[in-house]
Amino acid sequence: MRRKSVRVFEEREIAEADRRRILEASLRAATAGNMTLYTIIDVKEQKLKDRLAVTCDNQPFIATAPLVLVYCADYRRWYQAFCQVEERVRKPSYGDFLLAAEDTIIAAQTAVTAADALGLGTCYIGDILENYEEHRRLLGLPDYVAPVAMVVGGYPTAQQAARKQTPRFALEDIVHENRYDLQKSDNMLRMLEDKENWHGEELERRLRAFCERKWNCSFSEEMSRSVKAMLDAWAGAGGQQ
Amino acid sequence: MRRKSVRVFEEREIAEADRRRILEASLRAATAGNMTLYTIIDVKEQKLKDRLAVTCDNQPFIATAPLVLVYCADYRRWYQAFCQVEERVRKPSYGDFLLAAEDTIIAAQTAVTAADALGLGTCYIGDILENYEEHRRLLGLPDYVAPVAMVVGGYPTAQQAARKQTPRFALEDIVHENRYDLQKSDNMLRMLEDKENWHGEELERRLRAFCERKWNCSFSEEMSRSVKAMLDAWAGAGGQQ
Repeated sequence: MRRKSVRVFEEREIAEADRRRILEASLRAATAGNMTLYTIIDVKEQKLKDRLAVTCDNQPFIATAPLVLVYCADYRRWYQAFCQVEERVRKPSYGDFLLAAEDTIIAAQTAVTAADALGLGTCYIGDILENYEEHRRLLGLPDYVAPVAMVVGGYPTAQQAARKQTPRFALEDIVHENRYDLQKSDNMLRMLEDKENWHGEELERRLRAFCERKWNCSFSEEMSRSVKAMLDAWAGAGGQQ
Repeated sequence: MRRKSVRVFEEREIAEADRRRILEASLRAATAGNMTLYTIIDVKEQKLKDRLAVTCDNQPFIATAPLVLVYCADYRRWYQAFCQVEERVRKPSYGDFLLAAEDTIIAAQTAVTAADALGLGTCYIGDILENYEEHRRLLGLPDYVAPVAMVVGGYPTAQQAARKQTPRFALEDIVHENRYDLQKSDNMLRMLEDKENWHGEELERRLRAFCERKWNCSFSEEMSRSVKAMLDAWAGAGGQQ
């Protein structure tokens, strides 16, 4: 309940035992059919961190994080194993992609909670969903392996540790009973007023600015292009192995 | 580290305060741009639980769970709010779907950890990805809202609490350094030997049976059809609101 995203880290390495505990937490999380449908790439090379800081929407703090984990949905292992014992094996498709992506995020979020329990701060980098082709090349990803989440972490600086939590929407607005409640969903402007304490013209102006920054913007268009390419590579023609 | 999936529950309601703490944990999890890109449907109606037990690959224990939460990726709220203040707003697409789905799973997994901390046991029901059209109708989901995860939970019976944890792959096989390691991935049969303690002909036989049960099977084909329909509804023509 006290967790915050942390983007400024002390220059202090993570003890190998703690790094291992964080990764082991991922492995013990729930996984569909006990299949572990992901691979975790532990990025330690500085050059690679530097490049990811550029390809993930130019966020230099990525390069300074002692912990950089790229969580990849991975059905390659299982698909190849199936092909070794069966003649007729259907090709991976959309359902397998989403199921594996969910497995991957469940594992990532469990690591995030473990890191928090060990005194680290973390931040998800959603921009790993952009530039699919370059990320695939940088990380050497074969077919049926897709980078769906990046978590960076380290020990928070005193300033970061003291920072206030960001506000959230009220529980009543996000939780609906039995069925989706259109009226709750239609109340978004009021929800934003409550959450951000913006009113009247200020609310409109700030929401418009947010829309330009997070929706009608180049990273967001690139993310949709890139994820389409990721889906096509997974469920489409296939291609190089 | 001691968590297990739990599928048999005591006949004992969850105290309202605990239910609330579980849901509040979801809300405090990391969320892209502090946007809370999901809606949680708290299923309390017995008739609805009974139907989900059928539509989610006929798993009667779903109907007996005191806690049934359907986590839906939701960009409707934001998209509508953007349209209220801006003239030109791009339509939601693949990137927004995956980003919202990831937000949703991060929230779900945080609730799962909170539930565990409160003495509850939970189980993900991946089959909520099947039968998209019926789930959409049952839960009254409008455009840009998609059911991506279901978590059921309750207090574990003594038998479930005593059950052994299922084995996992070794950390070294799942974590790759800097780049994807094809050799590790190619070692899947050995990984399965280590994890399951199956060898030689038994390994082949069991893997073949697993492939028939989890891959070359009707629920898995239905999941891929259904997820394709979910993606098309989100990023395709749109349709009814």
